[in-house]
Amino acid sequence: MLLQETIGKIGALDRGAMEEAQKHLDSLIKPPGSLGILEEIAVRLAGITGVPRPAIGDKVIIVMGGDHGVVEEGVSIAPREVTAQMMQAMLRGVAGIGVLAKHAGARLIVVDVGVAGPVDDPGVQNRKIRSGTGNIAAGPAMSREEAVKALEVGIDVANQEIDRGAGLLAIGDMGIGNTTPSSAILAVLGGYKAIEVAGRGTLINNEIMERKVRIIERALAVNQPDPDDGLDVLARVGGLEIAGLAGVILAAAARRVPVLIDGFITTASALIASKLHPGARQFMIASHLSQEQGHQLMLELLGLTPVIHLKMRLGEGTGAALAMHLIEASLKIMHEMASFQDAGVSDLDEQKIMKI
Amino acid sequence: MLLQETIGKIGALDRGAMEEAQKHLDSLIKPPGSLGILEEIAVRLAGITGVPRPAIGDKVIIVMGGDHGVVEEGVSIAPREVTAQMMQAMLRGVAGIGVLAKHAGARLIVVDVGVAGPVDDPGVQNRKIRSGTGNIAAGPAMSREEAVKALEVGIDVANQEIDRGAGLLAIGDMGIGNTTPSSAILAVLGGYKAIEVAGRGTLINNEIMERKVRIIERALAVNQPDPDDGLDVLARVGGLEIAGLAGVILAAAARRVPVLIDGFITTASALIASKLHPGARQFMIASHLSQEQGHQLMLELLGLTPVIHLKMRLGEGTGAALAMHLIEASLKIMHEMASFQDAGVSDLDEQKIMKI
Repeated sequence: MLLQETIGKIGALDRGAMEEAQKHLDSLIKPPGSLGILEEIAVRLAGITGVPRPAIGDKVIIVMGGDHGVVEEGVSIAPREVTAQMMQAMLRGVAGIGVLAKHAGARLIVVDVGVAGPVDDPGVQNRKIRSGTGNIAAGPAMSREEAVKALEVGIDVANQEIDRGAGLLAIGDMGIGNTTPSSAILAVLGGYKAIEVAGRGTLINNEIMERKVRIIERALAVNQPDPDDGLDVLARVGGLEIAGLAGVILAAAARRVPVLIDGFITTASALIASKLHPGARQFMIASHLSQEQGHQLMLELLGLTPVIHLKMRLGEGTGAALAMHLIEASLKIMHEMASFQDAGVSDLDEQKIMKI
Repeated sequence: MLLQETIGKIGALDRGAMEEAQKHLDSLIKPPGSLGILEEIAVRLAGITGVPRPAIGDKVIIVMGGDHGVVEEGVSIAPREVTAQMMQAMLRGVAGIGVLAKHAGARLIVVDVGVAGPVDDPGVQNRKIRSGTGNIAAGPAMSREEAVKALEVGIDVANQEIDRGAGLLAIGDMGIGNTTPSSAILAVLGGYKAIEVAGRGTLINNEIMERKVRIIERALAVNQPDPDDGLDVLARVGGLEIAGLAGVILAAAARRVPVLIDGFITTASALIASKLHPGARQFMIASHLSQEQGHQLMLELLGLTPVIHLKMRLGEGTGAALAMHLIEASLKIMHEMASFQDAGVSDLDEQKIMKI
């Protein structure tokens, strides 16, 4: 119910607000378009919010955690208990996203959608749907009903944060083994072979890498996910945190709040969200280009352009957190820069400007 | 004297501090190297300052302004008086760099090294060496003595700011017409033809673009700058603000303070600085990749990797200002993230890690 309702609310960008934003940008004391993608982001924020010069609002980073049955195949480098340990470290401010959320001035929300064991931290929201997914090399990750429930966890958490004043969301993931299901999602939705989408994750060696490719192949063969049915792909070869994150995106789109995508795993969730409603894509903003093989392919499928190129491959929302500063910059440009007229700056010679 | 003295003080990066920084990074709760270039920056900051985990210190953006005789050839789209007008708008916080300096929490210093007319603003530091350069299509931009003086303005201003507590510098430019001398500098120092290094600047149309290429060719033919003599290149086809900015870089290197490079013009000044002392390069950090044709070529010559890809082409230090947030992030990672041991997070399986 909540899922269908949320998807039903996703509308188009507000073209009127976008035109007004563009007109304002073109009046400012700079060559037209010279702030590049910063201007495109400002215009899109106008289209998303329906306000030509939107306020910034609270910044909130939502990290979803879940475990993966497929780790029993030995595709990962870290023991499974690290998922829960890292979620605690995030809230204590000593994991990557803990540090960068503070640096961004953002509130950090950590949600257990499906960690295998208990997460011993009262700060972590316990919204566990099940204790980790099934091993996708042997069967489905979860049932279709569980996938809907996990999506609805994300919708509910995002709605809560938007109700509390969030004006800019970012998403992050935690889940040992989650590059394997993310690769499988990309393979299905992009029509790629396992070898084209599998990456080094946490820097696995060649032996583990070869095993990972075989496991992805097996997951696709065993589950036969239907590429035209996002929910089927999610349930068969996805993950609980991936579902939750897709839910956050859908809620953000329904509520007209921009949502920053992070790296490989969150972009897999963006692929699912955009399969559930193609219009969701317009409410997403890409942050960084991950070093993980396949991330570029995902972003191309979504038609998104990453702006930070730091060769990071940590996940957790770290790239999205860093991009918040750039999103705010685009809004400050809209609010604080003067026009040629106001600033008494001589106008450019229109005759000499290249028409684009 | 000041120039020679400054160049003489430029030393090597502190390898001991860098090793210690790397070791610390590898102990933190993340896969090794997973923060990518953010880690490389942290290590370089250690090497620059000689402190494994340096403090951040004050952030200061230094913008140098100057005019260019070559505008009389009609290579630009904006009238010359815009140089002075924009410098005033910067200090009022309503030009691009004014807005983004505030956003970065940085102090903004605006210096007149060679604006054609008076700059009517007490906030602008008046360090004018001459009222604009000569037309490089007809003769040298300035004398060798003037080039030294303009370099020393930059050195002096940077030294002042470092004395006042600056721990991170960024540089920006203002000068109508200054993509033409910057292109000429790249052509000489990189061995390129005019057509390979000339870009659209403030979006000039095809007619102006063809003229610009011819003017650069003529500037190179008339002046015959010596590619082995940075000072000769600067004096013959450079600019006063370009000289000042090269001076800032040299002072930063001598004082072991990191300096963020911006777009096409500041990177031209970086080419000059690195010609005057190749070691200066190690104290520079690239910020963004400009949309201006030729910027990538400059960065390749310097061996620098830009991390922000916003397709900006405004200059003023705007890209460098945006990157300050990332530099601070790299230091906060060093100061605030916990080690596997401290955080009680299970270690990774060393056996499975790819050796790099």
